[in-house]
Amino acid sequence: MIELDSRIEQAARRMMGRLDTLADCTDGPGLTRLPFTPAHRAAVTMVTGWMREAGLATGLDAAGTLVGRRAGPDGARALLIGSHLDTVRNAGRFDGAFGVLAGIAAMEVLDAVALPFAVEVLGFGDEEGVRFPVTLTGSRALAGRLDAATLADAYDADGISFADALADFGGDAGAIATLARDPAGVLAYVEPHIEQGPVLERAGRRIGVVSAINGATRMRFVVLGRAGHSGTEPMAGRRDALAAAAEMVGAIRAVGLAHASLTATVGQMSVLPGAANVVPGEVRFSLDLRAPDDTLRERALAEIRQALDTIAQAHHVVCQGEIVHEAAAARCDPDWQQRLHRAASALGEPTMTLSSGAGHDAMVMGTLGPVAMIFARCRDGLSHHPDEFLSLEDGTATLRVLVRALLDLRG
Amino acid sequence: MIELDSRIEQAARRMMGRLDTLADCTDGPGLTRLPFTPAHRAAVTMVTGWMREAGLATGLDAAGTLVGRRAGPDGARALLIGSHLDTVRNAGRFDGAFGVLAGIAAMEVLDAVALPFAVEVLGFGDEEGVRFPVTLTGSRALAGRLDAATLADAYDADGISFADALADFGGDAGAIATLARDPAGVLAYVEPHIEQGPVLERAGRRIGVVSAINGATRMRFVVLGRAGHSGTEPMAGRRDALAAAAEMVGAIRAVGLAHASLTATVGQMSVLPGAANVVPGEVRFSLDLRAPDDTLRERALAEIRQALDTIAQAHHVVCQGEIVHEAAAARCDPDWQQRLHRAASALGEPTMTLSSGAGHDAMVMGTLGPVAMIFARCRDGLSHHPDEFLSLEDGTATLRVLVRALLDLRG
Repeated sequence: MIELDSRIEQAARRMMGRLDTLADCTDGPGLTRLPFTPAHRAAVTMVTGWMREAGLATGLDAAGTLVGRRAGPDGARALLIGSHLDTVRNAGRFDGAFGVLAGIAAMEVLDAVALPFAVEVLGFGDEEGVRFPVTLTGSRALAGRLDAATLADAYDADGISFADALADFGGDAGAIATLARDPAGVLAYVEPHIEQGPVLERAGRRIGVVSAINGATRMRFVVLGRAGHSGTEPMAGRRDALAAAAEMVGAIRAVGLAHASLTATVGQMSVLPGAANVVPGEVRFSLDLRAPDDTLRERALAEIRQALDTIAQAHHVVCQGEIVHEAAAARCDPDWQQRLHRAASALGEPTMTLSSGAGHDAMVMGTLGPVAMIFARCRDGLSHHPDEFLSLEDGTATLRVLVRALLDLRG
Repeated sequence: MIELDSRIEQAARRMMGRLDTLADCTDGPGLTRLPFTPAHRAAVTMVTGWMREAGLATGLDAAGTLVGRRAGPDGARALLIGSHLDTVRNAGRFDGAFGVLAGIAAMEVLDAVALPFAVEVLGFGDEEGVRFPVTLTGSRALAGRLDAATLADAYDADGISFADALADFGGDAGAIATLARDPAGVLAYVEPHIEQGPVLERAGRRIGVVSAINGATRMRFVVLGRAGHSGTEPMAGRRDALAAAAEMVGAIRAVGLAHASLTATVGQMSVLPGAANVVPGEVRFSLDLRAPDDTLRERALAEIRQALDTIAQAHHVVCQGEIVHEAAAARCDPDWQQRLHRAASALGEPTMTLSSGAGHDAMVMGTLGPVAMIFARCRDGLSHHPDEFLSLEDGTATLRVLVRALLDLRG
């Protein structure tokens, strides 16, 4: 045990150093590593080297996913561990990369330990969906959930097609269908990731076990009232689109607050015509609604719609809503949740269960087998920001739980 | 009486036709007549002709105001009747022009009637403040309330200075100080104008007597919260700038509704960073507050400020407000209000008293003597819009009341 602890601490220290080094793989100042770019190429080269040092056999698949494989006994299923190597613009260094490097670190720690399964460490290339109007393409390819039609229309802001960019990177959009894994060969998919929120920090926990990745409904609303002169139109007869929309924002928030696991956010609002001396005739706003349970999300959406209708009637305005995006919740495997809690408990590490408000590759891997996510506490809940921070202690704790869970899998 | 009625009807019909004709004096499609432009020049030429037909001696003053004078007995004071000839962009044909042409029409009607005072019909050139960042320059010049410093920095969007544009038009910015009238020579200033609001129409009245031109406070507010991820930031700990601002909009409206003569409008709002999946960290919004009574406006502003502070505290956000414009209410002369009501009453024309939510040249003329405004009902409260409409009947009723009041002034 003492030797294992010492190996974990060494591997964790190396992992944290590598996360700093990997942040040098960027296009432009700060950290920006979009899919299939020179920065991404540099990252794949760097991580490939670390995978080989850890004894993994490496390859880049047709979708641009870096795969590092440790063989298991003949016919044994593979445990998939990973996350993504791409970033948003002006990103932090832990979102995504931490999960990949934690998988490598676990393999280093367990180098001399026989495991009754194969392990594949995965570094997906396109999780964030920043460059192309598609997302999760690497994981969807493995899950058999990426069709050619989705990619055919995907161009970046410079007019470069997804297929051309992928081909330049060494991939092959035409071969993506062949990447779909047979679920019979998959033991589970485990994704370590920073929380990207403040829940663990507020609760004083380093480690969280994810119960589900929240489903989401994204809507656009338009409120149509009647514009008028701010001085000559008396208050009483107005059909002020902003007065109505403001009440709607309050009603949406109230629904969000009524359910602990729900978030309901109005992040965009524009007011027309937008002059200080004109009563607003039109307001447009967004709704982002997320919940770990689809029934809860649907019920909340119905509550919101009813509240908005009531407010619209009271203000003599028209309110129209349109769903622009909808994704079902992805539940994490209950047995794997218990397994991770037990592993942490055996290490004396307090955990908590929480849902993930952000999307992850884990969302789509459920068709292949059980899915599990370990969240590591990050500072101030900050992510997608240069100040994103994971401490050595919290990174070490996460690695320790991951290694313990793998050891426990030996049965 | 029958002859007078018939003269009024003829003059009113002519006036309404002229309002159509005058709308041809525009730069570009629709009606756009900014100060000191070719369109304004054409309008001055046209109206000068009509003034001369009505027996008035015409001249353009140094500030670009068209003045048509009917002499009175030696040493008699002058009754000033007028409004403005400039328009906003894509304007209606009645705002401003109606008051000037009603003055001319009254002089036509009273052509053969001896009056114990002189009359000047005024066509101000720059009321709307659309071209230059100054406003009411013609009336302020007469009232002795326009200083050279105000004009020195006034340039239009093409970089043309107010002084150069005025000089090209035949005026002289350097001589504006000499335009200030001696109050001893002014009997009163009377401005007929369309209401630009829906109050008369809703009350079923053709004619309104204005009690005051509302004072106004214009403010800019900034609400500073904390941005966060819409999915990972739980509702409970948020410092959502929009959630706070939305409640503020409601509180402002409530203060506006609590006082019948008050208007309180939020016409502009911007939400930052403005992404559907980001909890707003900052919101900026405007406040436009108007009341016929300064004490009421100040009390309402204090109520609003207190409500906003309370809301900011509850949401753990910071709210900062800045006054960007403030104008005192201009009370119309009580004797003249009675005079106009009596004149209408004698004609069997029901009136109502209302305040003006919009600004007018009348605002600044109070330093010269009593100020009066007659409002004519317009359709749907619409103004500053091509569909702005004054009916022949309502225009005639206004002219009838104006003529009657002038006759009554003979004592």
